[in-house]
This record gives sequence, structure tokens and C-alpha cells, in this order.
Amino acid sequence: MKLTIAKSALVEAVSQVSKAVSSKTTIPILTGIKVSVDEEGLTLTGSNSDITISVRVPRKVEDKEQVTVEKTGDIVLPGKIFGDIVRKLPGDKVEWMVNDRFQTIIRSEQAEFQLNGLNPEEYPRLPKLPREQVFTMPADLLKSIIRQTVFAVATNEARGILTGVQWQLDSGVLTCVATDSHRLSRRQVEVEGSEDLVLRNVVIPGKSMNELAKTLADSSGYVDMIVADNQILIKNNHLEFYSRLLEGVYPDTNRVIPKNGETNLVTSTKELLQSVERASLITREGRDNVIKWTINDGKVQVTSTAQDIGSVTEEVVAKVTGPDLSISFNARYMIEALRSIDSESLRIQFTGVMTPFIIQPADRDDSLHLIVPIRTR
Amino acid sequence: MKLTIAKSALVEAVSQVSKAVSSKTTIPILTGIKVSVDEEGLTLTGSNSDITISVRVPRKVEDKEQVTVEKTGDIVLPGKIFGDIVRKLPGDKVEWMVNDRFQTIIRSEQAEFQLNGLNPEEYPRLPKLPREQVFTMPADLLKSIIRQTVFAVATNEARGILTGVQWQLDSGVLTCVATDSHRLSRRQVEVEGSEDLVLRNVVIPGKSMNELAKTLADSSGYVDMIVADNQILIKNNHLEFYSRLLEGVYPDTNRVIPKNGETNLVTSTKELLQSVERASLITREGRDNVIKWTINDGKVQVTSTAQDIGSVTEEVVAKVTGPDLSISFNARYMIEALRSIDSESLRIQFTGVMTPFIIQPADRDDSLHLIVPIRTR
Repeated sequence: MKLTIAKSALVEAVSQVSKAVSSKTTIPILTGIKVSVDEEGLTLTGSNSDITISVRVPRKVEDKEQVTVEKTGDIVLPGKIFGDIVRKLPGDKVEWMVNDRFQTIIRSEQAEFQLNGLNPEEYPRLPKLPREQVFTMPADLLKSIIRQTVFAVATNEARGILTGVQWQLDSGVLTCVATDSHRLSRRQVEVEGSEDLVLRNVVIPGKSMNELAKTLADSSGYVDMIVADNQILIKNNHLEFYSRLLEGVYPDTNRVIPKNGETNLVTSTKELLQSVERASLITREGRDNVIKWTINDGKVQVTSTAQDIGSVTEEVVAKVTGPDLSISFNARYMIEALRSIDSESLRIQFTGVMTPFIIQPADRDDSLHLIVPIRTR
Repeated sequence: MKLTIAKSALVEAVSQVSKAVSSKTTIPILTGIKVSVDEEGLTLTGSNSDITISVRVPRKVEDKEQVTVEKTGDIVLPGKIFGDIVRKLPGDKVEWMVNDRFQTIIRSEQAEFQLNGLNPEEYPRLPKLPREQVFTMPADLLKSIIRQTVFAVATNEARGILTGVQWQLDSGVLTCVATDSHRLSRRQVEVEGSEDLVLRNVVIPGKSMNELAKTLADSSGYVDMIVADNQILIKNNHLEFYSRLLEGVYPDTNRVIPKNGETNLVTSTKELLQSVERASLITREGRDNVIKWTINDGKVQVTSTAQDIGSVTEEVVAKVTGPDLSISFNARYMIEALRSIDSESLRIQFTGVMTPFIIQPADRDDSLHLIVPIRTR
């Protein structure tokens, strides 16, 4: 293996695949980054037991040559140190060669590194997913779906299937649901190339979703989703992101979502969020972080009290219809839901003081958050 | 106690004194911030066992009224939650009142907090330092002195006096020295108002120095230093920073600093720093982080090798006088010293492969770093 590569392209690719590389893995080869060089460029791959990220650096980008291959080949290099070295190289160009004993020379201007590589044959092969179950959406939409659902997953690993986000596809509509059984977030979007495709029980680990959002942070354009039995592959330009899927059957969440509210309110997302954040300051030090809303006559009175510390009260103007209501809930659940709403105003439907209530952007039905209230004295 | 205060002034003052407040202290009253209101404004104080920060918010700043006092008084409020609340208040103005049972109302626009305060009589009184031993310097100079010495203190608390920075004053010249016995950093500056003042053994904890640098980050103008038996007070406009001093006798470091070098080199600070940072990438994962310089014939060859990982070598152009030399040392000590040098070029004097060598900015004598080399095979 022997090539010259533009440092900027290498730094970018290493930084992407490094997100999947952990130094704490029990499989030594996975602390490395795999490099595969062919005539048309190179591919870097990083992986842990949950996700795999693979980035292609093509020979040319917009007619500008960024990789010059003299000899093809493969190598696995220690991930952390390789990344550190690449970032700190002095020049714009990097010469890179590997001999038969996996010894690797990386040279840039006056600096020359010699790194002991590992046998690329030992690196696990990427799964080959059949392109049968495929659909497509803009990368920005995928990022917003993740942002609007993933915070509601259960974080305790013992919760099994609830640590994932369920994706269901039917009639071209993708429904994404996350719940930890105390609150639920759901987002629906239309996707492309999937009129006949039906997916019932695709559950992606919440951690993978968070990593995917980070990996796609600077991406635009479209992404392809390719779903197999126990893997999902998300493809975007030169990037491939694989995640394992969770095993088990996700609970049916449709029946817990009430259809009609008795008390309804419409108000400013930002003002409501800020009032809840302030009320939470008093209670979050305590055990349960509970705050209370008293809804009547054109306003929501937000209160919280913590023994020994103090109390807070404030009012937010709202359009209220239906009977007056007092309801208590976990402030963190509310803050996370409100922060994920992009619309300026929102609507909330209550069906009673002990039944779940629903928060939605005022101007759309494709996004929904549900919170189970807390019984207080 | 009853007053109205501009939110921005309160946020700024709370943020400053909070640097001295720890939630982990064993003295409950010190988790609080003390507030003292008099006719002319208010004073906030935060403290832990090592440092105390006190900030004055005067009634008027540049003829603009920022505090309106209706009733003077004192209170201690829980530090963390008080800080959080102040930052999140909705309006520009804050109404603030305390009743006889230390109950505190903080009101801003539609939000009203009620906080349980503590008895201000229980808060430790600030030490009164006699203004006998005083000198003065610009805040920016003080910050650069700290930055150029404090990294060399011993960080292990068991090292006692070596965890501090020694300040000595004689004939109007302040000499600041820090050493962990493997390396040493020294900075000398002329200070004002101290011609007759002699200080021999003032040793300020390194941690206090770091906190002081943070506290002064946005400060300009002059600071007064007031030294007493076991305390130092640094005063800047409306800020007072107290630190305890370390007990014990600081070692005489003058005798370990060699006078003349045999091999001398002059080179670019930035190029030398970057070459050492790169060489350190290979060895810092290992136990000792040792790199080697081979100096001869107009250049420094920088090398480092770590078994199992690899090696690095590069050359930095330098003006060399005197005999050729190979010398090994801890890369971190070198990196920290080089990062603290502001001059474009530097000079290094070696007296032998096993004796300490001295790094100085090429254009000045008032700053000096010493590193003890490491014996290698």
C-alpha cells in the first residue's frame, strides 16, 4: 500500500470514523481504524459492537485530485494515536506507505512517523445488506426526527427494547416512536421510494441514533436507509453508518395516546419553556423534579416547591378552553419535549389530572409528545 | 433588606464569587453566597477553605443607577441555586427583599422566587489585613506571571510547599518561582510602590493562582497585592481575592540554575513546540513520555519511540553553538514551558546530558524554565 493524500481530506475522514472507535472495547482489533486503498481512492472504517462508520475518500473531488494511489492494499492502524497524528501533521500533503510486516510510514514535510499496524485480515467484515428494503429522506429531516424523539428513550440498559427508537413504515409514512413508559415522543414523516414497503418492528438503539445525528451534523443532501433483519445501514454520499437493531417486540403505543382533550391550551413555546426551566431550578435538586400547572382563565400558573429550599411561582398567558385543571409532572420530561418543538406556539390537550396529556406544535399534527402526570398531595 | 438591582450587574457579581463556592464543603454555611447591602450598594462574598472572593456592586456606575436600596441588611443564600436563578430571571430588573426569618423574595417580571436564606451572622468574617506590605502591578502582567509559572508546581498535595508558587520581593523586583523538583519556572517583574519592601517566603497555593487567573480573566487596570502573615489579598476595582498562604520554607532554587551553557541553541518557539507535540503523540500513551533531542550542525533532530506503537523523527532548524549533544526529557514539561513563552524565538543552554538545561525567550532575561533531563539507554 502506497499513496499520497490531501491532509484535510484525511483529517475529515478519520474524525468521522473515530466516532465509532472506542479504546475500551474487549476486541483489540476494534481499537483500530481499517484503511482500504484501491485504484479509485481509500475507505476508512471504525466500529464497535453497536455501530460501524465507513467513509470513502475518492481519488478526485470536483476534478481536484486528493488521493494519488501508487499501490493498493489494506492496513489496520491504532485508532486514537493515528487520529492524533493525522491532525498534528505539519504539511498539506501526506505520504503514506505500508510494508509487508504492516509497518506503516506516514510522512508530511519534515515529520516522519513509523506506526506498527495490525493485520487487516483480522478486522471484521462489513455486513452485506440486501437492497430490498430501502427508503430515502433528506439528511436534515433525519436529524430533526432524531432530535425530536431520541431523548424519550429509556436510558437504563435493563429496559431492553425501550432503549431504542421504533421505526414503522406503512404507505410511505415513517412513524418514529420513543418512550420510557413515563413519556413518549412520536414523529411522522413522508419518505421516498417506499410505497409498497412495510416495516413493523425496526427498533434502533437510542445511542446509535445519537451517534448518527453527530455523524450527519454537517451533512446535507439525501440519505438512503437500508433495513435488514438485525442491521440498518444509513448511506449519505461517501458515508456509511451501520447500526445493529434491538431484538424483541416494541409495545403498541397507539392505544396510550388519547384522542380528544377536555381542557385545551395554546401558548408560546418559548415562554412556556422558560417558565418550566425556572420552576425546575427549585425542584431539580430534590428527588422528583415535580412542578405543577394550574390552568384557568387565560393563563397557566407554574409553581414548584421544595422543602428547605423555597418555591417559585409565575404565570404564562395562554388560550384555554374547557374546564379548569391542576396537574403535576416531571419538569425534565416537559423541558426536553418543549426544547424539541420548533414551532413558535404549541397546543396541549388534557383528558384529566391522572391521565397522560399531549403536547403538539400548534401548526402541525406530525409531531407529538405525551407525558404521564404525577399524583401529588 | 430590600432593594432593586440591574440583573446584568447581579449576574456578573454572582458569577465571580461563585468561583470560590463549592457544594462539597464540610462547612454548610460556605455552600452559600453572603450578601451585604448598605446605603451605597451591595457586596457578594463566596469562600472555601483556600480562597475567598468578594465583589462590590456599587449603587452607581458612570452615573447610571444600578442598585436602589430601600433597606440595608445581610443574608446568606444557597450558592448554586441562587446563581442558577439569577441567570434565568426573565427581566432586566430584579426586586429583592428579605424578611426577619431570612425568607427571601426575588422577583423579576412575571416570575417570583421564594428562597430560604441562612443566618448571615454564621458566615465567617473576612480577615482584616494590615496595609503594611503592599505593592501594585497591572492585572495583565499578573495574569501572565501566573500563566508562566503555575504549571510547574507539584500537583500532589503530599508535596506540601512545592504545590505553591513562591513570591519573593526585593528592591522593587518580584521573583516568582514554581518547581516540582523535575522542572522549574521563574518569572521576574518590576512592581510599583515597594522600594523598601522585602518579602522572603510568600508561597501561594497553585490552585489559588489558577482561580485568580480565571477571576481576573476580563480585568484590566491595576491590582494591589496586600501580604499578611498567612494570607494574601489581591484587589482590583470592585473585586477582592483572598488566598491562604502555604506554611513552611520554600527551598533555595537559585543554586540549581546553571550560569553558563556549553551547547547553546536558538530556534523558532512555534516550530520547536509543534515538533515536540508531535513526538509526544507516540510516547504519551506510555509510562514516561520521554523524547530525545540530537543537537548538531544547525539542527535539532527530535525523536521518540514507544515499543509496540512506533516511532517519530523530525528536524527543526536551529542556530547551534558548542559541542554536539543528545539529551532526553519529559515531553510534557517541555510542551508546558514552550507554550508559556510569548516570544517568537527562544534560546536553550545545556551544561551536559545529565544536568538541568535552561529555556528562555531569545529576547529577554526575566523569564526562565529549567528541565532536568532523563537518563536513557
